[in-house]
Amino acid sequence: MRIAELSRTSGVPVPSIKYYLRAGLLPPGERTAPNQADYTEKHLHRLKLIRALIEVGGLSIAAVGELLASLDAHGTNLNEAVGAAMQATLPTTTSSDSGFLEEATRLVHRVLDKRGWQDHDPVQVETLISAVETFQRLGQPDVETIIELYADLVERLAPKEIEWITTRDSTDGVVEAAIVGTFIGGRAFSALRSLGHEAAAKKRLPQVRLESTPPATEESV
Amino acid sequence: MRIAELSRTSGVPVPSIKYYLRAGLLPPGERTAPNQADYTEKHLHRLKLIRALIEVGGLSIAAVGELLASLDAHGTNLNEAVGAAMQATLPTTTSSDSGFLEEATRLVHRVLDKRGWQDHDPVQVETLISAVETFQRLGQPDVETIIELYADLVERLAPKEIEWITTRDSTDGVVEAAIVGTFIGGRAFSALRSLGHEAAAKKRLPQVRLESTPPATEESV
Repeated sequence: MRIAELSRTSGVPVPSIKYYLRAGLLPPGERTAPNQADYTEKHLHRLKLIRALIEVGGLSIAAVGELLASLDAHGTNLNEAVGAAMQATLPTTTSSDSGFLEEATRLVHRVLDKRGWQDHDPVQVETLISAVETFQRLGQPDVETIIELYADLVERLAPKEIEWITTRDSTDGVVEAAIVGTFIGGRAFSALRSLGHEAAAKKRLPQVRLESTPPATEESV
Repeated sequence: MRIAELSRTSGVPVPSIKYYLRAGLLPPGERTAPNQADYTEKHLHRLKLIRALIEVGGLSIAAVGELLASLDAHGTNLNEAVGAAMQATLPTTTSSDSGFLEEATRLVHRVLDKRGWQDHDPVQVETLISAVETFQRLGQPDVETIIELYADLVERLAPKEIEWITTRDSTDGVVEAAIVGTFIGGRAFSALRSLGHEAAAKKRLPQVRLESTPPATEESV
């Protein structure tokens, strides 16, 4: 298909498609004339993935670029692909002299060693340590209890997600499912977590309610 | 304490502190001379919270501003405070004509209604619908199974997090714990989830390994 049709079918404006082509996010179409190229279903699918990661996953163009580069590099693997993207999306944490760093590092290694999670991706371990250190620096109590709770739930969640990811008929399909599962799935989990908090808070603290505004239907009747 | 000491104790450079003061993120100190102000432990604590949300939580200055404004507004509640910040951190999702929207909306309401999660924060419901729609648009299978799995885990997680949040001796403490738990805790959970994926993938797919590079210690011996 021509670029105009690719734009119509995907809902992505032509200038954006041209931008993704220049940035290397979208592979070039097959040239059919000096100023004309032909695009396939593969381009359409890739375009949908790009938009999903930017709009729903909240990734930057640069992060999507890194992610897709690793998706395209053969011989790569799930951890590397997702790790590269995670790295691109992480805020730059400055090392801190708060004195909590050593304590946080020990806490994190206790939690990981207990579960036999070896050869950990150092980017994720650092993120976790930095979050734990922040909890401690801000004087939050029972940090290890909370991290243990998270790790227990992840032990239930992760094998099922990996099972879901690996039921694909191609390596590309598996890698794409890992990316979509990580970012879009992560977004879904976090929205559900907020909704769960809302429900749990209402049960525990019946006085904590959203200020009720009169329903619009009554006003308009 | 003077601004120089606030800077030394917190590790935040004076120009950044001045910027947070101008932006209203940090309340002004008590003026002791025309060009001098006095800051308290409260300022120090607030400064730590600001840096944590920016550096570890990955929030923008604008998002932190909205969050702290709701933290300071009395009569507000947890859901509103966190909801406002979430809204500031969400990518702008464009409404889509993919035809999956209706299906995604029904799926999300089935999952929520099943759990009696009523009066849901519409921002979070929309985020969830948008994630589900994206899964479907990208042709991912068994979307409802995955969302049900997430919701089941959240049903275990959320009441314990709310219990953790509410064991504070002041309303301010509860609201701050909710904010820190949502953003810094969310970051910790997501790092643990990646580490759990890595461990589960190695168990399920022993061939999917990080390319082993020779250990540095052997090289240097």
